[in-house]
Amino acid sequence: MRMVDMIEKKRDGNELSKEEIDFLINGYTSGEIPDYQMAAMSMAIYYQGMTQQERVYLTEAMVKSGEQIDLSAISGIKVDKHSTGGVGDTTTLVLAPLVAAVGVPVAKMSGRGLGHTGGTIDKLEAVPGFHVEISNEEFIKLVNKNNVAVIGQTANLTPADKKLYGLRDVTATVNSIPLIASSIMSKKIASGADAIVLDVKTGNGAFMKEIDDAIELAKAMVEIGNGVGRHTMAIISDMSQPLGYAIGNALEVKEAIDTLQGKGPQDLQDLCLTLGSHMVVLAKKAETPQEARRMLLEVMENGKALETFKLFLASQGGDVSVIDDPTKLPTAKYTFEVKARETGYVSEIVADQIGTAAMVLGAGRVTKDSTIDLAVGLVLNKKVGDFVNVGDPIVTIHSNNENVEDVTKRIYEAYTLVNEPAKIPPLVYKEIM
Amino acid sequence: MRMVDMIEKKRDGNELSKEEIDFLINGYTSGEIPDYQMAAMSMAIYYQGMTQQERVYLTEAMVKSGEQIDLSAISGIKVDKHSTGGVGDTTTLVLAPLVAAVGVPVAKMSGRGLGHTGGTIDKLEAVPGFHVEISNEEFIKLVNKNNVAVIGQTANLTPADKKLYGLRDVTATVNSIPLIASSIMSKKIASGADAIVLDVKTGNGAFMKEIDDAIELAKAMVEIGNGVGRHTMAIISDMSQPLGYAIGNALEVKEAIDTLQGKGPQDLQDLCLTLGSHMVVLAKKAETPQEARRMLLEVMENGKALETFKLFLASQGGDVSVIDDPTKLPTAKYTFEVKARETGYVSEIVADQIGTAAMVLGAGRVTKDSTIDLAVGLVLNKKVGDFVNVGDPIVTIHSNNENVEDVTKRIYEAYTLVNEPAKIPPLVYKEIM
Repeated sequence: MRMVDMIEKKRDGNELSKEEIDFLINGYTSGEIPDYQMAAMSMAIYYQGMTQQERVYLTEAMVKSGEQIDLSAISGIKVDKHSTGGVGDTTTLVLAPLVAAVGVPVAKMSGRGLGHTGGTIDKLEAVPGFHVEISNEEFIKLVNKNNVAVIGQTANLTPADKKLYGLRDVTATVNSIPLIASSIMSKKIASGADAIVLDVKTGNGAFMKEIDDAIELAKAMVEIGNGVGRHTMAIISDMSQPLGYAIGNALEVKEAIDTLQGKGPQDLQDLCLTLGSHMVVLAKKAETPQEARRMLLEVMENGKALETFKLFLASQGGDVSVIDDPTKLPTAKYTFEVKARETGYVSEIVADQIGTAAMVLGAGRVTKDSTIDLAVGLVLNKKVGDFVNVGDPIVTIHSNNENVEDVTKRIYEAYTLVNEPAKIPPLVYKEIM
Repeated sequence: MRMVDMIEKKRDGNELSKEEIDFLINGYTSGEIPDYQMAAMSMAIYYQGMTQQERVYLTEAMVKSGEQIDLSAISGIKVDKHSTGGVGDTTTLVLAPLVAAVGVPVAKMSGRGLGHTGGTIDKLEAVPGFHVEISNEEFIKLVNKNNVAVIGQTANLTPADKKLYGLRDVTATVNSIPLIASSIMSKKIASGADAIVLDVKTGNGAFMKEIDDAIELAKAMVEIGNGVGRHTMAIISDMSQPLGYAIGNALEVKEAIDTLQGKGPQDLQDLCLTLGSHMVVLAKKAETPQEARRMLLEVMENGKALETFKLFLASQGGDVSVIDDPTKLPTAKYTFEVKARETGYVSEIVADQIGTAAMVLGAGRVTKDSTIDLAVGLVLNKKVGDFVNVGDPIVTIHSNNENVEDVTKRIYEAYTLVNEPAKIPPLVYKEIM
């Protein structure tokens, strides 16, 4: 088997066999296949795509390239959730304790990553004392006890994907549906979940700006998941404006606390109930999403969801007094109100711009070595469809820096006001099974 | 300027600017742009192609990546010829002295290379004493004196092309018209010729098997040549069977001697007259190809062509007594006649198979370090269209090895005999100006 022949085969639009894809991924991981051949192959895949069968083989080969987490010691069907990322996406913080409260075991492996805000672990670390440096045994024990625990990502998870992603990033081959789908799914599968709910975002603040691309990616991932025997479904959700009100680490923890009690932003609560109800169904704790939704609403109302959140945090060292008194969370030195300069209806909030404004404040990482400021961020007071009078506060800036000129400018640029009542985009476009 | 943005631009079918192409080639030559990015770019070019303007910029950038030969000290218009390569192509050996004999200055930089037989320099070294290790000053002096000289290729000619070709070879991106065209043309242009005649071969023994591909390549090269101010034209010629009779180094020198006297194989003579007459016209030594052809036929007949060959060889140390007595050329120990096993008309001689048979005898290089046996090779007694009786010799093997079983087998496989008279393919399909 020669790599150059395989590149030619894919270049000409032919299907690679399981043996060839194994050879490709094993050779690339071990360094026997050089970057330049993998780069040519990636570009050929960019143009020619991959069949459903090829995508399954590719994902399986990447899963096998590293460690595979064994969650079999946890009883029940372990369901994982993955979001393709957006601005102000607090769903994981809410969902993990929420579905755990109705008996779904959530064994979450999470990362830090780059972005407008930190990853799930960074956000949780806004709770003083909370930590994810726990042993695998402790992790499994906690899930069995509380139905929920979070552990940091193991270093050796899908090394093939890590290497390939780095290469794609510098060779303009990131934007390939089969490569994106197998990259995401290989990590989820290696993390050991039995079933997977995917939240594929679309809109200006999402990786997939166009809904058709989001649907194609969702279908590709659902096919891969089911193709390797992990029950998988996806929803396509809106990211044409930030989700919820808060963008920032401690600010999102506070928003999660509200949402777990049914007092959070409507869109965030709705999305959590939709995703959560599918997780509950996949975990076989309910027959239908409607039944699951009722169960989830019940634990929001009777306090069990928040109680589970506290148990989860306390079990990993967190000071849960902050839950009852969120003023004890990291708090920024200054707050500034950004006030409307005109009267009208909010017709658009460019999510990317809002995300960048939060990053400028220090809420996210620009490079791996950036330090995150857990206290800072933005709280939106007005969302798409809202009516605004001139002088009304539209956004509150939480900053540790007195100068927020650049941030304010970005917020004004992000908001568009019009005279006619603006249409509110739907929150969930589609479900893909 | 970032390479990844340029890859994306080309990936999406957009045109690269002169500045971008210069950045690309300079960066790749210096090592600042890594192989993997160039591999992705090459694959994007494979799919998206390049505009005429991009091809010119690419060629110019590759020319500037290394040494450029200055032939201005040679008076007159220097015309070079390039063939895309085939089996038994003795044209350079004939053409150099032939057009020199009518006053066209031929300052030939030539190589050795890999292939079924040696390169032009290897073939000429079959003449005892002949050598190409001459200084640039001597080279120019000889062209001014004899109208013809051959020098070995300088090591630093188009290093960008050398590096890029090596990469394309292992990334399945060789077969790209813009990359092939700029690779060939950059070498020709850096070699200093004022005008260029291209012989683009098509058929089973050629790199371009299909005539449409050959025409596309020829057009691309002619456009580049004229685009950088070097008068360029191309002919599309047949390589569905070997050219002439001889395949082998000394054997081709002997064939060249015959052809220079008008006694060579008809197809070889015709092709040399066609290519030569265009060279004469581009050198402004004749008004029309018809007039040029008459001039060339005249020097074949009056002995001036052969005389020029002798002068050329003698000026570079060659023992010209071999011209009058070709038995003094390197001669193989054994000759074997391959005899027809049936009666019929030759309808096909797979040129590649014949070439490989010559290589098996030792006439060509498999790797850079192979030693060439100048004496060995094949002489075809029958070509396409010829009638053959069972037992007639179809090919004579010249070998230094007693065992020619494999070679014989290949020859039988290459020849197809049919009952009906077979159509002789045209020698020249098209001229492209």
